[in-house]
Amino acid sequence: MKISFIAIGTELLIGQVTDTNSGAIARHIAPYGWEINDIQVIDDNEPDIIRAVERALATSDVVVTTGGLGPTSDDITKHVLTRFFGGNLVESSEVLENIRRIFHKRGFDLNRLTAAQAMVPDNCTVIQNRVGTAPIMWWERNGKVLVSMPGVPFETETMWKEEVFPRLLDRFPSDVAIAHATLLVTDYTESALAEYIAGFERNLPDYLHLAYLPKQGTIRLRLDGKHPDGDFIRAEVARYAANLASQLGDAVIADRDASPAEILIDVAREKGLKIATAESCTGGNIAHAITAVAGASDVFTGAVVSYSNEVKISLLHVDAATIARLGAVSEPVAAMMAAGVIDACGADVAVATSGIAGPGGGTPEKPVGTVCMGVAVKGHEPKAYTFTFGGDRSRVIESATRRALILAIKAIR
Amino acid sequence: MKISFIAIGTELLIGQVTDTNSGAIARHIAPYGWEINDIQVIDDNEPDIIRAVERALATSDVVVTTGGLGPTSDDITKHVLTRFFGGNLVESSEVLENIRRIFHKRGFDLNRLTAAQAMVPDNCTVIQNRVGTAPIMWWERNGKVLVSMPGVPFETETMWKEEVFPRLLDRFPSDVAIAHATLLVTDYTESALAEYIAGFERNLPDYLHLAYLPKQGTIRLRLDGKHPDGDFIRAEVARYAANLASQLGDAVIADRDASPAEILIDVAREKGLKIATAESCTGGNIAHAITAVAGASDVFTGAVVSYSNEVKISLLHVDAATIARLGAVSEPVAAMMAAGVIDACGADVAVATSGIAGPGGGTPEKPVGTVCMGVAVKGHEPKAYTFTFGGDRSRVIESATRRALILAIKAIR
Repeated sequence: MKISFIAIGTELLIGQVTDTNSGAIARHIAPYGWEINDIQVIDDNEPDIIRAVERALATSDVVVTTGGLGPTSDDITKHVLTRFFGGNLVESSEVLENIRRIFHKRGFDLNRLTAAQAMVPDNCTVIQNRVGTAPIMWWERNGKVLVSMPGVPFETETMWKEEVFPRLLDRFPSDVAIAHATLLVTDYTESALAEYIAGFERNLPDYLHLAYLPKQGTIRLRLDGKHPDGDFIRAEVARYAANLASQLGDAVIADRDASPAEILIDVAREKGLKIATAESCTGGNIAHAITAVAGASDVFTGAVVSYSNEVKISLLHVDAATIARLGAVSEPVAAMMAAGVIDACGADVAVATSGIAGPGGGTPEKPVGTVCMGVAVKGHEPKAYTFTFGGDRSRVIESATRRALILAIKAIR
Repeated sequence: MKISFIAIGTELLIGQVTDTNSGAIARHIAPYGWEINDIQVIDDNEPDIIRAVERALATSDVVVTTGGLGPTSDDITKHVLTRFFGGNLVESSEVLENIRRIFHKRGFDLNRLTAAQAMVPDNCTVIQNRVGTAPIMWWERNGKVLVSMPGVPFETETMWKEEVFPRLLDRFPSDVAIAHATLLVTDYTESALAEYIAGFERNLPDYLHLAYLPKQGTIRLRLDGKHPDGDFIRAEVARYAANLASQLGDAVIADRDASPAEILIDVAREKGLKIATAESCTGGNIAHAITAVAGASDVFTGAVVSYSNEVKISLLHVDAATIARLGAVSEPVAAMMAAGVIDACGADVAVATSGIAGPGGGTPEKPVGTVCMGVAVKGHEPKAYTFTFGGDRSRVIESATRRALILAIKAIR
């Protein structure tokens, strides 16, 4: 089943907000063999909304729109869609009650504008929004379905999973089985990897497809299979993925679509090890990546973000003379930071970063993007590495974060 | 001038990668009065690419595509567009030289697949990609321009700013002046704010437009003006924005489109104060938000991510008996963490978080989303607050991060 997705809102076109709803929905439906066929991001005005809806209804059986349903006067989607399907707005006491409940829970008083959200089309199925004030609208025409959902990501995702997708599954039962496998690969560029596994790729049967998804130092190899016979396609995907993994050996750091932080947490949990980080140029982003994963507290004890040299010395016991002699961005300092945070945070394994994220601070010897990393495992001599990452400040921080997590995985797996 | 934007790639439709290129380009062109009119996100196959390009050329003078130009066999955009415009691929020695240079810089060997990127259409203007291996292609037909760019965000953004946009500006000189003003507002819900300033909004002249952009505890109010007379529209936008700001008073925490972290850094720099953070449930994300801003090192000394109670006690000198009596998620502990990190990191102002990000760990008294925050200013008694944030783990972390930054701004401004 293919879905056409329409994200509505001026804020999406002027770059103040990024559409993440389509991606969240796509990830949720993939295991069911459903796909998003195309995405249109459009302005909140009547001609653009109608043109986009007509295009989408022409090519897909299901159209999902998000956004344009807020209480303010720049949100017109509900009015446009109601007219498009030939209906009128009427007040729903049920929706009004839901809005009252949400406002009461948040401790706000109901006001006139929000109460207007209780006006709903008289020609659609209204689905209550458990986590927000804008109701969801479901229209059918000529066997096709259009669902209009709010655009706030938390509301969209929650209501998609709880209400909208289960109803779509009932309405359009599926008949093709699908299977996926993902390998997370490091140590290769995309083109070197493609050349190395060109033989594998050439010999894939036509019910299998291989995609390369590079991301800052890792490449996700995703093998997708589609076939009427579910047992067959699952076995085939598993068999080809296992072959590919054995060809790639140590370069595969995980056989699933997981982030480096998730992999590190799993490996540490398996080995019974505690993790800490000491961060200068990454500024807490490694700790954030780890603690963004539910269950991180099983293995993560803490971090010291030692942005100033004083903090490196006082909390991490880095040798002041070494900083004075070699600079904070040096392998000995990074190694001492990693060893220091093992003591400071009571951990078994630690990574440390000290580098120049830019845009300022670069020198001919240590240009912007230079990052020294230390990796310490309790009871062993710490190791240190130097990398040069390209791009702007945020890219250097992101690349260094991923690289540090991969170093930690390799140190303990 | 309106641009139709097309992002090409299966990875964008299956939710493994989010298109951020359209937003980056939209933000870059806004000050010139240029806009993205619509965005299409499509699969990397010939019929979909051709349909999207035909749609876009029908409605806009400029079409920008990103993605589908990688070295692997799943990237077919260059071939499809070359055929669409009736050309053939020929090898470019200039592009090959650029690819050699990039590979040499990254320390990789040139391979066959990447060398294939030196094959370029014989009927377009080829623009060298200074920061990547896929060249940029510029076609013209019937007075309209289609530019095909690589999809890696760093390459897209860099080459857009350096090469593509300057050429488009030359090709389509502008004749309407535009002006913007943004107020960052806190303490209001979107609907309460809309009701409070309904009179202001009703009385806006037709060359001004007000947009509400809510984001986790703050609302950006963006006033956009368009008029042939540049001096007039800049003065009008400034005048109306000043009126709005005076009506909203203390609820306005900045009069520009800045993140809370940027505002905090500016206020601290202005007052000569040093910042630190002590983070439990936010796990380093506040420090990351601050250090993501260039120049953070002027005011940020460091952070302690005290995920375990042992680290709260050893590095932040939180009283162990208080943790035992009230739990780590309590106002007294948050206040002690904030005071403790002022000493540990040599700062003048600090925020601290201790909460339950979920999905596990909630209790009836302290449900998931409960976050206690401490704010300390050197020489003053620390203050503490308790918030309840909705949503999943990442939303609780993001909301708590923004709220903590706003508390710090309010404590020192």
